[in-house]
Amino acid sequence: MSQRTHVCGEILEELIGEQVVLQGWVKRRRDLGQVIFIDLRDRSGHVQVVFNGEKYPEALNAAEKVRNEYVLEISGTVVKRDEETINDKIATGKVEVIVENMAILNASKPVPFLIEDNVEISEDVRLKHRYLDLRRPKMYETMQTRYRTTKLIRDILDEQNFMEIETPMLTKSTPEGARDYLVPSRVHEGEFYALPQSPQLFKQLLMVSGFERYYQIARCFRDEDLRADRQPEFTQVDIEASFLGKEQLLEMMEEMMGRIIKEIKGVDIPKPFPRLTYKEAMDRFGSDKPDTRYGMELVDISQHVENSDFKVFASTVQNGGVVKGICVKGVADNYSRKDLDDLSSFAEIYGGKGLAWLKVEENNTLKGPIAKFFNEQVSSTIVENFAAEAGDVLFFVADKQRVAWDVLGALRVKFAKELDLVNYEDFNFLWVTEFPLLSYDEDEKRYVAEHHPFTRPLAEDEALLTTAPEKVRAEAYDLVLNGYELGGGSQRIYERPLQEKMFAALGFTDEEAKSQFGFLLDAFEYGTPPHGGIALGLDRLVMILAGRSNLRDTIAFPKTASASCLLTNAPSSVSEKQLDELKLAVTVEEEE
Amino acid sequence: MSQRTHVCGEILEELIGEQVVLQGWVKRRRDLGQVIFIDLRDRSGHVQVVFNGEKYPEALNAAEKVRNEYVLEISGTVVKRDEETINDKIATGKVEVIVENMAILNASKPVPFLIEDNVEISEDVRLKHRYLDLRRPKMYETMQTRYRTTKLIRDILDEQNFMEIETPMLTKSTPEGARDYLVPSRVHEGEFYALPQSPQLFKQLLMVSGFERYYQIARCFRDEDLRADRQPEFTQVDIEASFLGKEQLLEMMEEMMGRIIKEIKGVDIPKPFPRLTYKEAMDRFGSDKPDTRYGMELVDISQHVENSDFKVFASTVQNGGVVKGICVKGVADNYSRKDLDDLSSFAEIYGGKGLAWLKVEENNTLKGPIAKFFNEQVSSTIVENFAAEAGDVLFFVADKQRVAWDVLGALRVKFAKELDLVNYEDFNFLWVTEFPLLSYDEDEKRYVAEHHPFTRPLAEDEALLTTAPEKVRAEAYDLVLNGYELGGGSQRIYERPLQEKMFAALGFTDEEAKSQFGFLLDAFEYGTPPHGGIALGLDRLVMILAGRSNLRDTIAFPKTASASCLLTNAPSSVSEKQLDELKLAVTVEEEE
Repeated sequence: MSQRTHVCGEILEELIGEQVVLQGWVKRRRDLGQVIFIDLRDRSGHVQVVFNGEKYPEALNAAEKVRNEYVLEISGTVVKRDEETINDKIATGKVEVIVENMAILNASKPVPFLIEDNVEISEDVRLKHRYLDLRRPKMYETMQTRYRTTKLIRDILDEQNFMEIETPMLTKSTPEGARDYLVPSRVHEGEFYALPQSPQLFKQLLMVSGFERYYQIARCFRDEDLRADRQPEFTQVDIEASFLGKEQLLEMMEEMMGRIIKEIKGVDIPKPFPRLTYKEAMDRFGSDKPDTRYGMELVDISQHVENSDFKVFASTVQNGGVVKGICVKGVADNYSRKDLDDLSSFAEIYGGKGLAWLKVEENNTLKGPIAKFFNEQVSSTIVENFAAEAGDVLFFVADKQRVAWDVLGALRVKFAKELDLVNYEDFNFLWVTEFPLLSYDEDEKRYVAEHHPFTRPLAEDEALLTTAPEKVRAEAYDLVLNGYELGGGSQRIYERPLQEKMFAALGFTDEEAKSQFGFLLDAFEYGTPPHGGIALGLDRLVMILAGRSNLRDTIAFPKTASASCLLTNAPSSVSEKQLDELKLAVTVEEEE
Repeated sequence: MSQRTHVCGEILEELIGEQVVLQGWVKRRRDLGQVIFIDLRDRSGHVQVVFNGEKYPEALNAAEKVRNEYVLEISGTVVKRDEETINDKIATGKVEVIVENMAILNASKPVPFLIEDNVEISEDVRLKHRYLDLRRPKMYETMQTRYRTTKLIRDILDEQNFMEIETPMLTKSTPEGARDYLVPSRVHEGEFYALPQSPQLFKQLLMVSGFERYYQIARCFRDEDLRADRQPEFTQVDIEASFLGKEQLLEMMEEMMGRIIKEIKGVDIPKPFPRLTYKEAMDRFGSDKPDTRYGMELVDISQHVENSDFKVFASTVQNGGVVKGICVKGVADNYSRKDLDDLSSFAEIYGGKGLAWLKVEENNTLKGPIAKFFNEQVSSTIVENFAAEAGDVLFFVADKQRVAWDVLGALRVKFAKELDLVNYEDFNFLWVTEFPLLSYDEDEKRYVAEHHPFTRPLAEDEALLTTAPEKVRAEAYDLVLNGYELGGGSQRIYERPLQEKMFAALGFTDEEAKSQFGFLLDAFEYGTPPHGGIALGLDRLVMILAGRSNLRDTIAFPKTASASCLLTNAPSSVSEKQLDELKLAVTVEEEE
């Protein structure tokens, strides 16, 4: 192997007449008998190289054996292409390289799929041959976007005097939160480490240590049942700071997001980001991660239908429920009565009992199966409340607050997609604040932390922690982009008594709190500064930046929905010797 | 909490007269009744703040409650100190802050040890209260050195067009190499992931994918019995490149090391680094990671003593062994005959049967229990070979090559330390090349890879792979600094037939090779470029840069020698529910 003089993407007009050595892959080969053209590709792009049998018969001879994806080294001279063969679509399209010598560095079998974008391949085949899938231009670009984003985040945090500090991967299992991945210890027989769900406790301990500004691009693990957008291991931009109030932290994050979007997408985004309280987000969008790139906000008409003739609406409101709806503009002619009735099954997915609808006609009149229950005045009020016009369709849910939010929030997203209301050039950031600190878990019969047990309650709600825990709002904030939760954070509890009160609210005995989190409670007694932080999902951020619809496409070697690696066949069985050393036995029954 | 205007280290003369708000910890407090002085510390340094009862009685009152390590917020005015109280030892020593208002942000119990360097504390206590140990200035500096080194490595590799790519932590267990940490799968009952010992296979697959220049600051795991300088999880600077020959890679690494030493230590180091073959390193220094900051090289006198009257030497050589020695300069008077005889037990640690010694006197005469066996001519030859002078002591090992290397290599290090021969300002880098590819494992009754099974044999030795595997040299290189192996790398096998030959040399059946590494063998058939790489131990590099003697001091939250975390008590037992979900049973017997 010789030393490259250039990469393929550098072969431009200014090199005409120069001798170059290139190394790369055969992207395409056209054999015209006495001349063979090959598009040679490397990570920088590709360039046409020409084997001319008249001038260099040996090179042509060698090129005859070559097939797609062979690895070649060529040396030759850069020349201008004939006018009629100039290719304006690629940077190197004005020139070509006349090959004088060629060596095959490695051969390739025919590849199982074309190394091109826009080729339909089943995801299983892609994952099994991930090393070839990653050769496709869009996958390469996505990895590059991931890298550039990560590097930029590190540079920005460095400028802000944050220090990256690595925290342990082999750590302690705790019962709060999601299910841990466990790692059996050989030295301490019968004991286990856990892989971290996040560096939360360690980053708080680093605040106790006085590092003041910590970050880490950290691998985290959750052994949860996977959904399309979950991976058993994922990467988190983990940030924590002392003596930095919520306002300063949010401002810093907005600055960071602005620079990322500018650098990666070339777009300026307005600052400061809008803020919605949790309550407002749910009331207006039926979601705590609203996509504000389109309207269709939820409208509450409870008070207007409480005394209407439509019993379903009236009785729902009279029993403490709500009637809410959304207005879908100008689609009345697109949906038949049957189409609209069929949407009830969509509502059921989100816990709804059904979905009422009304078409708006001229003069504020309403049409549809339930139109007859509303007199002229109620009809007009409804139409006004939605600012509806003829041709619009209104959809209603009459149910408990939570159900109305969920069904209409989902319906809103569904229509936005169906009606193509989304402008993919928009980057709509916003903050959602004042989340509930706790929620009651019906299975466990106790309160659980909505974020995690270290989140600070709003000062004005602290007294409610013992009297009405469900009413306590958290000093927490989620960063939302285009309907995705990019991440969340909070100001933390830093006083032992308040942390103990929090554990008590979660139903921990003193004993339990001490055995699980005693080291944190102890640490809080040695001069712990006020602190807070945030964690961003890097995979999700990259997915949006790279315009992908699938988290797996942002990860070099992802797992499937059943947490398998199709490339290496992990997980797999291990030897008896390995299990013996760990003093473990597998209890799977044979017949399973 | 208000917003800080400055950090403590910024309070310099140019701020005299200005109003500042500071937040930090009480480093020291001196109570003079009507005046209290506090050294306020934050991550940037510390500054003296003064509570003057005459001017600000409320502030003084508040300060009376304050103790060491309390967290304070103060606001006040920067003033020049009186001439006689100026402290030239600290940057902020010319000024102080007259406190007008003070708030206690958090209190602290008395700390279990002083937050100062040079305080003797048992390591167990330090690790249990790691959050306080990390407050000590030298620990903070070490973490900062670690961070700056890591950031610099990332910046340098970015300039060189390397892309950081994350590889999986939940991967496949392989039988080669050290013992894996296993992670039971809940979804795939009875199966396990393994935590990576290194990203080796994935980085090679990324080369198959055409990324060409990959790096990762990667966490790696080995479940080995720990020694003082081992951790179950450690961090590796993992680098791999395609189309980059060994010479280019080594040059790039020298450039990187040069910049790190310059930036962190302010020292210019000469390039290129010296290179020794494995054979030469062992012959001259008795070590494959020689410390060249001092001499005492090994000298082989086998040919000169083969026919001497000293039977032990003569018969060793006649039976294929060697007689080698080192010369320790000018210490003859420091060591009694008993001292020197006692060194035999040191030799035994390294497999030696004993250690012969001779003191050099005037006129090349030798003194000591074995001196009588050597006539004048042999004595002179020996003295000349060692370039010895009166007052030196010569030490000899007569044994198999390997034993002579090991004993004398260790003895050399021992004397360098005892005699304080090391200049701690020196950074002596070197490369060791041409390692053996394989060694015969007496326990396993087969060859095992010295580096790993993907290392390329030297082209000229390839044919020996089937005939004399132990003679094959590897296209491998270790980077050594001051007697520590910083890391190692190699050019890799990239052809399926050669990789199969390598697996065969390791005693794998075709079946075994395919079941463990089939995906790699398959990948090699689709246009795999020539590639190679290197991996550096970040913890070790930081240890040397920060002038620490212990790897644990370079890691924020390390494990003990028994792989425990004394802070969180990991590993620990887990609930029956967790084990049931994993279909696992612990088989530790009760009586243990």
